Amino acid sequence: MFEKRPPIDKSEYIFGLRPIVEAILAGREIDKILVQKELKNDVIKELYTLATDHKIPLVKVPLEKLNRVTRKNHQGVIAFLSSVMYASLDNILNELFSSGKTPLFLILDRITDVRNFGAIARTAECCGAHAIILPSRGGAQINGDAVKTSAGALNYIPICREENLKNTITYLQDSGVQVVACSEKTDLPFYSFDLKGPLAIVLGSEEDGVSPEYIKKANATLKLPILGKIESLNVSVAAGMALYEVVRQRTLAS
Amino acid sequence: MFEKRPPIDKSEYIFGLRPIVEAILAGREIDKILVQKELKNDVIKELYTLATDHKIPLVKVPLEKLNRVTRKNHQGVIAFLSSVMYASLDNILNELFSSGKTPLFLILDRITDVRNFGAIARTAECCGAHAIILPSRGGAQINGDAVKTSAGALNYIPICREENLKNTITYLQDSGVQVVACSEKTDLPFYSFDLKGPLAIVLGSEEDGVSPEYIKKANATLKLPILGKIESLNVSVAAGMALYEVVRQRTLAS
Repeated sequence: MFEKRPPIDKSEYIFGLRPIVEAILAGREIDKILVQKELKNDVIKELYTLATDHKIPLVKVPLEKLNRVTRKNHQGVIAFLSSVMYASLDNILNELFSSGKTPLFLILDRITDVRNFGAIARTAECCGAHAIILPSRGGAQINGDAVKTSAGALNYIPICREENLKNTITYLQDSGVQVVACSEKTDLPFYSFDLKGPLAIVLGSEEDGVSPEYIKKANATLKLPILGKIESLNVSVAAGMALYEVVRQRTLAS
Repeated sequence: MFEKRPPIDKSEYIFGLRPIVEAILAGREIDKILVQKELKNDVIKELYTLATDHKIPLVKVPLEKLNRVTRKNHQGVIAFLSSVMYASLDNILNELFSSGKTPLFLILDRITDVRNFGAIARTAECCGAHAIILPSRGGAQINGDAVKTSAGALNYIPICREENLKNTITYLQDSGVQVVACSEKTDLPFYSFDLKGPLAIVLGSEEDGVSPEYIKKANATLKLPILGKIESLNVSVAAGMALYEVVRQRTLAS
């Protein structure tokens, strides 16, 4: 039993050095750029700088990998376009504070399953979260499946891609946002903690939860109810419970 | 793009009139029985009676459908075995009350998506729900995919298959169990309602929610937070939020 590998949607990528540089400059949202390993010239250098500035992941691959995507004259570079709104966390935070809103973010630590990511985005949008924060490397691929599982939410909720989540947590805390990690390894339940102020919730991978370094940095580690035998919630359900609790506390307080 | 139809797992069904009758009498869990349309004899009659007594769905199909499952001498009947614990709601309820526990059930109204069903079972088991109540016809197929999505929870949480959910709701209410329907079409949030007593939560299909007849019969209709643009939670996330709220209220009260 297997799922057929979906054919690549021709509308989802562009190729060639100049077209890609122009696309970035024009503000097109790009998921990632594949660059042929051996490639070296001035335009490539410009592309590297641009990609870094715009926090676009750039992956060096052998020529065959590029040829598998397209046989056209790709010049050693192919960029995958995104249907998702990438945004700067800085801008979002400023906008929220200046409009008097109370920030609510989700930080996803190594959540690679596309369906879980889509499901989390759907719930986050429903519960009024302001952005989802992802590491620029190693997160779930934001593809058609993710958008579909999100029931379209990924067209509404901004996604922030951050180079280093540890720095992002520090930045949020310095900006007055409490960061709480969701984990079973604590006695403190979500409902016993005040979630009414500016808040970011860190959710970890289904395999081993939130990374210890983020737990250590977080303002608190909070747990969700686990009473049964299987002792693990699906991460998108956990996200739903945590967001529910935030909305419950904020609604009752308002 | 399509998923390949999975090959039928030979271990998952048995065939032949006598072996199936014996299996039912021996207490084997059976999902459903396919019977050849034209078949009529005494053993078939016995099978019909047994299936009815054990609430096993029995479907009349043309010979070709049976032949597609197996070419062996099936004698016009094939039974699909279940890895799931079916149980009598009556027994569960009696056991809970006599051991001083406060019943918590989920009633699933036309939730046909196998993954949603599995995800709900996982969360229900985690949150200490005592059983999932399904209609004996028209629910999700409880197959390998459901068990896998449930992370094994379907091996622990009892499933009750009920002929008529309306009667089941009445029966629960007469037994002192409050029945609440989950819907957006209400102003009453889950957190404003006392969920600490014996309780059954009705969740409806993703398309059109809980059936009006069950909403009408329910003791209350309660909503979950919907603040965003897409205005619909995945049903397994909704189940998680509702169960979270029950556990929150009960834990704080105890």
